[in-house]
Amino acid sequence: MTSFASDNHSGAHPEVLAAIAAANGGHEPSYGADSYTGRLQDVFRHHFGDTARAYPVLNGTGANVVALQAACDRWGAVICADGAHINVDECAAPEKVGGLKLLPVPTSHGKIDLSGVRREAWGFDDEHRARPQVVSLSQATELGTVYTPDEIREVAGFAHERDMLVHLDGARLANAAAHLGEPFRAFTTDAGVDLVSFGGTKNGMLFGEAVVVLNPRLNHGMDYLRKSSMQLISKMRFVSAQFLALLDGDLWLRSASHANAMAARLAEGVGALPGAEIGHPVQANAVFVGLPAAALAALHERFDFYDWPTGEARWMTSFDTTAEDVDALVAATRAALSR
Amino acid sequence: MTSFASDNHSGAHPEVLAAIAAANGGHEPSYGADSYTGRLQDVFRHHFGDTARAYPVLNGTGANVVALQAACDRWGAVICADGAHINVDECAAPEKVGGLKLLPVPTSHGKIDLSGVRREAWGFDDEHRARPQVVSLSQATELGTVYTPDEIREVAGFAHERDMLVHLDGARLANAAAHLGEPFRAFTTDAGVDLVSFGGTKNGMLFGEAVVVLNPRLNHGMDYLRKSSMQLISKMRFVSAQFLALLDGDLWLRSASHANAMAARLAEGVGALPGAEIGHPVQANAVFVGLPAAALAALHERFDFYDWPTGEARWMTSFDTTAEDVDALVAATRAALSR
Amino acid sequence: MTSFASDNHSGAHPEVLAAIAAANGGHEPSYGADSYTGRLQDVFRHHFGDTARAYPVLNGTGANVVALQAACDRWGAVICADGAHINVDECAAPEKVGGLKLLPVPTSHGKIDLSGVRREAWGFDDEHRARPQVVSLSQATELGTVYTPDEIREVAGFAHERDMLVHLDGARLANAAAHLGEPFRAFTTDAGVDLVSFGGTKNGMLFGEAVVVLNPRLNHGMDYLRKSSMQLISKMRFVSAQFLALLDGDLWLRSASHANAMAARLAEGVGALPGAEIGHPVQANAVFVGLPAAALAALHERFDFYDWPTGEARWMTSFDTTAEDVDALVAATRAALSR
Amino acid sequence: MTSFASDNHSGAHPEVLAAIAAANGGHEPSYGADSYTGRLQDVFRHHFGDTARAYPVLNGTGANVVALQAACDRWGAVICADGAHINVDECAAPEKVGGLKLLPVPTSHGKIDLSGVRREAWGFDDEHRARPQVVSLSQATELGTVYTPDEIREVAGFAHERDMLVHLDGARLANAAAHLGEPFRAFTTDAGVDLVSFGGTKNGMLFGEAVVVLNPRLNHGMDYLRKSSMQLISKMRFVSAQFLALLDGDLWLRSASHANAMAARLAEGVGALPGAEIGHPVQANAVFVGLPAAALAALHERFDFYDWPTGEARWMTSFDTTAEDVDALVAATRAALSR
Repeated sequence: MTSFASDNHSGAHPEVLAAIAAANGGHEPSYGADSYTGRLQDVFRHHFGDTARAYPVLNGTGANVVALQAACDRWGAVICADGAHINVDECAAPEKVGGLKLLPVPTSHGKIDLSGVRREAWGFDDEHRARPQVVSLSQATELGTVYTPDEIREVAGFAHERDMLVHLDGARLANAAAHLGEPFRAFTTDAGVDLVSFGGTKNGMLFGEAVVVLNPRLNHGMDYLRKSSMQLISKMRFVSAQFLALLDGDLWLRSASHANAMAARLAEGVGALPGAEIGHPVQANAVFVGLPAAALAALHERFDFYDWPTGEARWMTSFDTTAEDVDALVAATRAALSR
Repeated sequence: MTSFASDNHSGAHPEVLAAIAAANGGHEPSYGADSYTGRLQDVFRHHFGDTARAYPVLNGTGANVVALQAACDRWGAVICADGAHINVDECAAPEKVGGLKLLPVPTSHGKIDLSGVRREAWGFDDEHRARPQVVSLSQATELGTVYTPDEIREVAGFAHERDMLVHLDGARLANAAAHLGEPFRAFTTDAGVDLVSFGGTKNGMLFGEAVVVLNPRLNHGMDYLRKSSMQLISKMRFVSAQFLALLDGDLWLRSASHANAMAARLAEGVGALPGAEIGHPVQANAVFVGLPAAALAALHERFDFYDWPTGEARWMTSFDTTAEDVDALVAATRAALSR
Repeated sequence: MTSFASDNHSGAHPEVLAAIAAANGGHEPSYGADSYTGRLQDVFRHHFGDTARAYPVLNGTGANVVALQAACDRWGAVICADGAHINVDECAAPEKVGGLKLLPVPTSHGKIDLSGVRREAWGFDDEHRARPQVVSLSQATELGTVYTPDEIREVAGFAHERDMLVHLDGARLANAAAHLGEPFRAFTTDAGVDLVSFGGTKNGMLFGEAVVVLNPRLNHGMDYLRKSSMQLISKMRFVSAQFLALLDGDLWLRSASHANAMAARLAEGVGALPGAEIGHPVQANAVFVGLPAAALAALHERFDFYDWPTGEARWMTSFDTTAEDVDALVAATRAALSR
Repeated sequence: MTSFASDNHSGAHPEVLAAIAAANGGHEPSYGADSYTGRLQDVFRHHFGDTARAYPVLNGTGANVVALQAACDRWGAVICADGAHINVDECAAPEKVGGLKLLPVPTSHGKIDLSGVRREAWGFDDEHRARPQVVSLSQATELGTVYTPDEIREVAGFAHERDMLVHLDGARLANAAAHLGEPFRAFTTDAGVDLVSFGGTKNGMLFGEAVVVLNPRLNHGMDYLRKSSMQLISKMRFVSAQFLALLDGDLWLRSASHANAMAARLAEGVGALPGAEIGHPVQANAVFVGLPAAALAALHERFDFYDWPTGEARWMTSFDTTAEDVDALVAATRAALSR
């Protein structure tokens, strides 16, 4: 049975796996000196503009913590959503590895706005308070919503005026781009974003993410940060080859668009059912739905998904979620609600 | 041209790649709740005994730093060889992520003995000195030598009498086992080792290592340490499936034995040449050889390898190094020496 | 002009200074092996019960971070008030030095209750979330309020049932005791508190605080934690002698009662003025008062005090604040309000 | 009986204590905004030149770790003597708090020379190795020897050519200056030193040290580093007033010269005895002497001092060591050797 628990319950996309096999011919230098990683820079520049430089890393927490360290002094603090992955799902790695202070702010459907940023953007010269140096946004958010380019531009403008930088946790950046119908650079580089954690795993890779630096001064020391944060991959060609499979063509977009479409189909089907309440705008590949306890329990017997701390069910779709999977879940929900 | 620079210049063994492809069918729970990771525990118990528990991680530095944190209090120090990977090749990740103090000691051909351990095994109740809590040995060592079970047992006995634990950095544990002709447990569990960083990447995996806990009390908090140290893999099945390919059969031993045999062939061939001096006993898959500068330079034109800080050439062999590769290097060395 | 900005704008109490001078005769062992520090243990046991053990440290942030590390594993998190000193005034030292995650919760007049603790007391076995292991309360709070023994007992009971410990940030513990009219142990040891940051500086010492361990298992490694956290004092006699001056008699209570009485007098005087609004119950030595902007500005011309982020004035009293000082501030406020 | 165990077994110099008492009149702003700390800057500029800026801190380990963080990126390493205080006596605070790697090198009588620095000054662009960014010298050294201005200048020149900075651990900087007969700036600012840990405690203060920044770009973020490293003093006037007592006059020099003279007298007296062997040139206030075990044991019955790991006795003198104390120790040694 297909899982709706997480987009990381999927395996790898067949084209990704094929790329790994193709990269497996003979010896290559390690630690990023291979030919695949070299080509990868061109591909990232194509998507993010000429200033972009990509640093493949091992996982999403690693990407975030390496990126935030690059953007913060030893005394820096990071303004983020209270439900941000860095704040609630990384077992304090930003604090432990980076020594960083997180300054969580409330959101509307997972999105921070200027009023949220303002709550913590103060005290810039007070040594008693870790200095706010970064605003970190998740794109798409943990609640499946997507910032518009203008929303990001507004936050970036506000941040830059105060000598703060903007980081995007893009574990699902492809889903955001697919929703917006925009190239990556439209809501990153061109909107003032300084660096991005670019996700591969949740869009069909076996493993691997990348820190994409858009603001060139943040390249300083990045190689060291990646290594000392234990995120340097020896056989890096195998991450880079996966990224090439995704990004040197439209696989990234096909997969993300499909996942988004499956979430939309699910939301449409379930949203029409009396007793089901869609919790947040469905813009990426997540559907949050409020259901009676009995219905939730009935669905858990047949489907794999998480209950959110709010009590809602969270259903994630993926590149390999099928319309049949979705329709089965909708039908089961209808049955559970009509008992 | 085959590289002699590192065993991580190889790609993946075809059987390993096949195992990944086979594991790619459908959805699996993430973060280790998958069926492959479940089976992996049986396989590690088979090799290391009933107390063993394996925690797959992303890379070797991660394995070491997670393991050492598990074995040390916040104020702990680690006695290790001055040339140990944790001391010279991990960009201070043990210090930065774990807050650990390393106490390096000199070695004989890369191996620590009791006299080395004794140099730093003192001051156990002096708050001014980080408390020595672990002795970390590399098996095989960075210089291609291998501890005998008795040598490890002696260090472990000494350590345990002083409330210290024993860690093995086993990035090349398979090469050590192949050299000794012993099962893993003979020189780990049965010799008093408390926990091991078990290497996969240098023996034909794409990526992935494991912390293998042999002393059960060290399981406490390991899940948290792995996550907060950014070493938890979401699609863990893809690491576990690789380990199963290696260890649930004899691929690990075939590959390591082959690599060792290629190193032995290389040492035999080159060692017979006047003007070449083998630096260390060739017991695993590394050959260190002293050569005149002109010969070194000539060889660098045709072969990829590192010059060690000592001035020697370091040649590493791998599971896919062929006898022809070796013979070509021997012949080239002969030619370079006779110019 | 007397400052109402902070109780650390005062100097040292004359009896404290006299104790330092008296301790200055001849050589004494350093790092706590002196006779003054020895006697100090008896005095702390007198106040906190037989299990108490005191570890003098250098400052309040140091006391808190040493204490929290002792109470947390490497993966621990600390539930605290959103306005707690550890969360807003220590420049992320808990995160940076201890690698700790803080889980801030909203309060009523600075005090956490069970509903606040419950917001973050969950997910105890989820490696993705730093494990809640401590509830930290400030006694008195940063807003000048005081927990009753029963309130502390209730939080401690809840915490202990979930394997969490209870820490008190007692930078102003003497003011709390003076308000409650209770011995220290009534609202610490006897109420289930596990360890305390005991403040000296804000009650008339030149410098110096102490971590007081009440739960004996937390003594494990404390000497090491204090030293590695850079809080070990070489000439420790000079901190211990100050604590003896405070605590081996009633100086601590005289001073704190006086400071509290001055705050009460101030609140009474200002609270009666139309246009002034006392923000929080005045139980210790802080008065928060809402005033029109013009009045605030007028008062800042003559008095030294802080505007809180809420817009209120914060007035702190101290052991050396006089009734005349207070009456002058009341009179000036009356004048400012009647302009 | 006077202790020869450490110069921190002394109390405070009476002039220092008087300065504290004099500073105790009324309210002063905290955290360094007081008038004493303001004046202190002039005094440090007088001694170290116009670029100097002093940051009072709480203790010596704190001074060192704050200074080294200011001089290192997150991936920096520090070359130091193998016996340096930062390497052997600070319980890994540089590693734990700063995430720093120490690269210890052997010394001659406690002093590093260029050959030592060269051993570790390599690999500047290799992300696998924490980047050497600082050379830290102890002046005077832990073995009681003193670098000449030229020796420091040579190391500084070498370091600066490689983009490394120079730090001095000056816990006993006054003893060094007294030995050299030079002003502080001659062997710090003028010799190319970038920042100094300036010691007060071992020269007659109750507590308190200072980070003295000579290279202005290292002021960046220093206030934050001091606070987040838990080294900010609330009632800072009491440290600054002590430093003024020492440095705004010649107390520092009188005290240090006296301590040095007592060490010289001790070395002269004991060095003349058959069976006693002075271990290192006696240039500051330490005497290391090799003695037969029986003599050592006899002396321990009457005098307080440490046996060094080398087996030698270490005798420290202080501002309040008297000639009678010294002569008594010499006489006792003579008696012990002649048994």
